[in-house]
Amino acid sequence: MDEDTRTLAIINSKGTLDMAYPGLVLANAARMMGIEVKMFFTFWGMDIINKKKSDHLKVSPVSTPSMGMPTMVAGLPGVTDMATTMMKREIEKLDMPPVHEFLEMIHDAGAELYACKMSVDMMKLTEADLVDEVDEIVGAMEFLEMTEGAQILFI
Amino acid sequence: MDEDTRTLAIINSKGTLDMAYPGLVLANAARMMGIEVKMFFTFWGMDIINKKKSDHLKVSPVSTPSMGMPTMVAGLPGVTDMATTMMKREIEKLDMPPVHEFLEMIHDAGAELYACKMSVDMMKLTEADLVDEVDEIVGAMEFLEMTEGAQILFI
Amino acid sequence: MDEDTRTLAIINSKGTLDMAYPGLVLANAARMMGIEVKMFFTFWGMDIINKKKSDHLKVSPVSTPSMGMPTMVAGLPGVTDMATTMMKREIEKLDMPPVHEFLEMIHDAGAELYACKMSVDMMKLTEADLVDEVDEIVGAMEFLEMTEGAQILFI
Repeated sequence: MDEDTRTLAIINSKGTLDMAYPGLVLANAARMMGIEVKMFFTFWGMDIINKKKSDHLKVSPVSTPSMGMPTMVAGLPGVTDMATTMMKREIEKLDMPPVHEFLEMIHDAGAELYACKMSVDMMKLTEADLVDEVDEIVGAMEFLEMTEGAQILFI
Repeated sequence: MDEDTRTLAIINSKGTLDMAYPGLVLANAARMMGIEVKMFFTFWGMDIINKKKSDHLKVSPVSTPSMGMPTMVAGLPGVTDMATTMMKREIEKLDMPPVHEFLEMIHDAGAELYACKMSVDMMKLTEADLVDEVDEIVGAMEFLEMTEGAQILFI
Repeated sequence: MDEDTRTLAIINSKGTLDMAYPGLVLANAARMMGIEVKMFFTFWGMDIINKKKSDHLKVSPVSTPSMGMPTMVAGLPGVTDMATTMMKREIEKLDMPPVHEFLEMIHDAGAELYACKMSVDMMKLTEADLVDEVDEIVGAMEFLEMTEGAQILFI
């Protein structure tokens, strides 16, 4: 690995809308600056690259006290969907694309996308279940091998 | 950037009391050791530097199974406030300051505090809504530029 | 510190089953590759090294929207235990050991385990409450001292 190349490796372990965007925004900014980007998706973060789920991620008012809803209200049927719709609208107002389109955009810009082998096995998924932008399914050792010298974030 | 300077960059994305302290404690320890500190606040982490919220962060028993409360109990009205009061008391016993005072302390010690531009826009905030210790509102690219060579934590 | 030694430092701040495994899996993979590993347990992550709790960590459907359960269902008595049992079975199918055995395995392989002094104090624990694999109870400054040049993850 070239010692002069700055690399940002992002491990995405959460599958909520609010925890998907920080990684996407950082990856996009990094690529615009010529920083190498390696995105690794594991555990609940697999939802971000799951074809059927990537554009249907949700925010969860009941597990996000910052949203300011009393638990008894946040837990009512429909509240999660309402909060998700509201956040999606705010994201759109900032001219940010939906999740799958954002993945396409950073992948086109040179970011590499990897799915965690263990999570793929645990969730009984195959490559066909993942968005086309995923470059490869890799194990933890392969991930560590390709991130020597990188700045690694765990989201 | 000086290659010999060690820098700790902390991205704070959560707005709960229990996830605010780890970053503050690490930032404080780092400054005591002469390590450069850059704190970046984004998404729910904006609450930590929001004037009206920084001293009113809460713990959420319903989203913290480690607190050991059955969900049906954790969701009852008043339980979040009770758990928050209990944790604040424990924090105080350890001689740790409340959140805003802690921000002042690390800022006085030389830690730099940055608010995420995208989050400021999304939450329709202005500089006036943020605690005075915030040095600047910056975008993701500016953040990446100032963290080359740093150890970056995502909380 | 040897400049040529790659070190992975993992701060474990969560006490759920699904957030305990990513750190253990990475630590294990790193040791197999000869990478130095320093595990630091703080806040709710203390449960992972708590003798009475390490093999009784739970997943929490109510705070994990990716599990796909409506909040009203996820909050019902027994649902957390059921979801935990299901995830443990999946983990076992992948030939991964239970948490305490996994800690033993990575410790035997040379990973160093540290408990956060502040958390030990806050939770009124003593060394006797922690699994034997814990090497030492350290403060934030000691942790920072031993992680200079390391890749640090905050889980």
